[in-house]
Amino acid sequence: MKRDVLIIGAGGVAQVVAHKCAQNNDVLGAIHIASRTLSKCEAILETVREKDAMKVEGVLAAHQVDAMDSAAVAALIRETGAQIVINVGSAFVNMTVLDACIETGAAYIDTAIHEDPAKICETPPWYGNYEWKKRDLCAEKGVTAILGAGFDPGVVNAFARFAIDRLDEVKSIDIVDINAGSHGKYFATNFDPEINFREFTGTVYYWEDQQWKETSMFASGRDWDLPVVGTQRAYQSGHDEVHSLATNYPQADVRFWMGFGEHYINVFTVLQSLGLLSEQPVTTAEGQEVVPLKVVKAVLPDPASLAPDYTGKTCIGDLVKGIKDGKETEIFVYNVADHKDAYEEVGSQGISYTAGVPPVAAAMLIASGEWDAGTMKNVEELDPKPFFTILDRIGLPTRIKDDMGDRPWNA
Amino acid sequence: MKRDVLIIGAGGVAQVVAHKCAQNNDVLGAIHIASRTLSKCEAILETVREKDAMKVEGVLAAHQVDAMDSAAVAALIRETGAQIVINVGSAFVNMTVLDACIETGAAYIDTAIHEDPAKICETPPWYGNYEWKKRDLCAEKGVTAILGAGFDPGVVNAFARFAIDRLDEVKSIDIVDINAGSHGKYFATNFDPEINFREFTGTVYYWEDQQWKETSMFASGRDWDLPVVGTQRAYQSGHDEVHSLATNYPQADVRFWMGFGEHYINVFTVLQSLGLLSEQPVTTAEGQEVVPLKVVKAVLPDPASLAPDYTGKTCIGDLVKGIKDGKETEIFVYNVADHKDAYEEVGSQGISYTAGVPPVAAAMLIASGEWDAGTMKNVEELDPKPFFTILDRIGLPTRIKDDMGDRPWNA
Repeated sequence: MKRDVLIIGAGGVAQVVAHKCAQNNDVLGAIHIASRTLSKCEAILETVREKDAMKVEGVLAAHQVDAMDSAAVAALIRETGAQIVINVGSAFVNMTVLDACIETGAAYIDTAIHEDPAKICETPPWYGNYEWKKRDLCAEKGVTAILGAGFDPGVVNAFARFAIDRLDEVKSIDIVDINAGSHGKYFATNFDPEINFREFTGTVYYWEDQQWKETSMFASGRDWDLPVVGTQRAYQSGHDEVHSLATNYPQADVRFWMGFGEHYINVFTVLQSLGLLSEQPVTTAEGQEVVPLKVVKAVLPDPASLAPDYTGKTCIGDLVKGIKDGKETEIFVYNVADHKDAYEEVGSQGISYTAGVPPVAAAMLIASGEWDAGTMKNVEELDPKPFFTILDRIGLPTRIKDDMGDRPWNA
Repeated sequence: MKRDVLIIGAGGVAQVVAHKCAQNNDVLGAIHIASRTLSKCEAILETVREKDAMKVEGVLAAHQVDAMDSAAVAALIRETGAQIVINVGSAFVNMTVLDACIETGAAYIDTAIHEDPAKICETPPWYGNYEWKKRDLCAEKGVTAILGAGFDPGVVNAFARFAIDRLDEVKSIDIVDINAGSHGKYFATNFDPEINFREFTGTVYYWEDQQWKETSMFASGRDWDLPVVGTQRAYQSGHDEVHSLATNYPQADVRFWMGFGEHYINVFTVLQSLGLLSEQPVTTAEGQEVVPLKVVKAVLPDPASLAPDYTGKTCIGDLVKGIKDGKETEIFVYNVADHKDAYEEVGSQGISYTAGVPPVAAAMLIASGEWDAGTMKNVEELDPKPFFTILDRIGLPTRIKDDMGDRPWNA
């Protein structure tokens, strides 16, 4: 049994995490939030107070920390007494925060793989480049570390596990992520544009015929007929969960598909083709050195600003195919979330909501002991059922669709 | 009779002007070229020597001058003894160079209106904001100043005058500028992107029903069926010559149409919609102040680099409608130029070629006395026939198309 949470980061996802921790502080205990900029943490806690989100009276505190400084994070863990760390800071701080957890014995949860700012798209499996190198150390020290526990990666890994458990043999896992919402702007990214575009400028790795294969962004597209959001075109994209699922289920093909409209692809293609998404500096006629991607980021809307006007729904799910009782079978496990509902509940848009709720469910399962594994785990290596049970209750219900119909996962 | 030429500027158009002056130095005398960067002038003179372009032996000299400094330009005019100044520097130096000509008595030729760098698209008629304010002074001092003597403005003004002279009454002048060439790049502008985009981000003024009307870029498009280049879509754009022609022929509707492909419009629209064509600085997340348009310019190909691979043709002409002998009549006066021919002759692409040849023809007409008006003139106020005669000979032949067929203007 562990208690008291330290949230690392103060962006859109951190805000959702803070609200959800507050709503469940009877289980989670004290809630601390820390980032490089104290005022951002304080602003988030202010929204928690405004919504009167704390279930029971308790600690709600903001801290300043440089998450790239592992010793400083360890000191903060000791100072706060937090036994669970939810890392939703930038993709560049995973390893320093994980090291601080290993150092102090606190449980670690994150929602995306570690990235080196100087490298775009490393060799597969991505987890092997950083996180998994610490797996033996976690086991040796009995430290629980749950990797990629957002929605995708995260809930979709549990969707895969749940479907695979119902089959005798798994043949393929296709993860489909559709945002059918509308923010009303000419163009915007749902996350930090720098991180968002980095996802799409590299090689797209997928797992087929028991080997890594490569394609490029927008090269491989397919229409998907999905519950609630209808027919939507999605394109093979590189994504974290492909790298752990392919390692855990090497017999299955594993692909990730992300939905994009024509307009998004057009704007992306123009910017990419002109060299405006480059992270390499260019020199203007006046001799100023500028990174084009940072200028694009400066002219685009702040992703957080999209929330109030965001309408429509997301549908994210796994189509898992395999053999059951000698017959070809397929199961679609999925969630539908609503942007407007998310904004009303926690002041965030749906994309941040779906990413921020699951790590809180994971923290609650560490608190209850059910997921307190005492070692490093990807989500598909843990029992999905208690995870779904909590997610159903705290805002992200799981449904399944197969030849017996479309229904809640536990109906 | 005037002789000896000083070219101001050292860009792509200046290179064409230098070559054409050299090819006609028996008429024009000494050839001087001056810009802020001496090495650029020297590089141009080097290409003139490489092509062995000088018709007769004579002076060919490079100078350094800040064209924003009128006294420095006047001193250079006196030092070189130049009696004709061809200003093909940036759009921001017209008034200082014109003042130097008025001061020294040298004849002045330019190819585009003066612009204030801080203002995009001033009120019509554009010439009234700067150049025409000096008209009385030119007349008083007997200084010849020929405004807008490139292709458009310039040759197209002479096309209009030529057609109008054949009519009893003019009803409309539609100038159509089609570049049906291909540079083989994903996207590039034919001139300095900063100047190029400034042309398209402001209000589009045109003259109809004896008044100024407004539209916006790409809002008004029409297919034109043209000689050699075939059917091409062109859009109403703001352009200098509309402002002088509407003043000189207020009874006629005057419109300018520029050809754009779907791809150009798409890229332009994306950049414009995102705010990347703004000349107003933005601040990056790291606190750096950057003008987005300057970054776009930095990532686009250097217009001069397009020349070697440019293929295809341009067609620029005037469709003039009116009454002749009581009957509705229309005449299309036009030129077709070839990018590859231009590169082979003077090492430049066709767009620079069509802009750079006409001011040299104008200089030759000042040298011969035919256009040495002793006052300020727009091109339609001068006899077009000797202009066409020289242009036929030095690379830009004029043709007409009417109900009697398609033929040379003087056939």
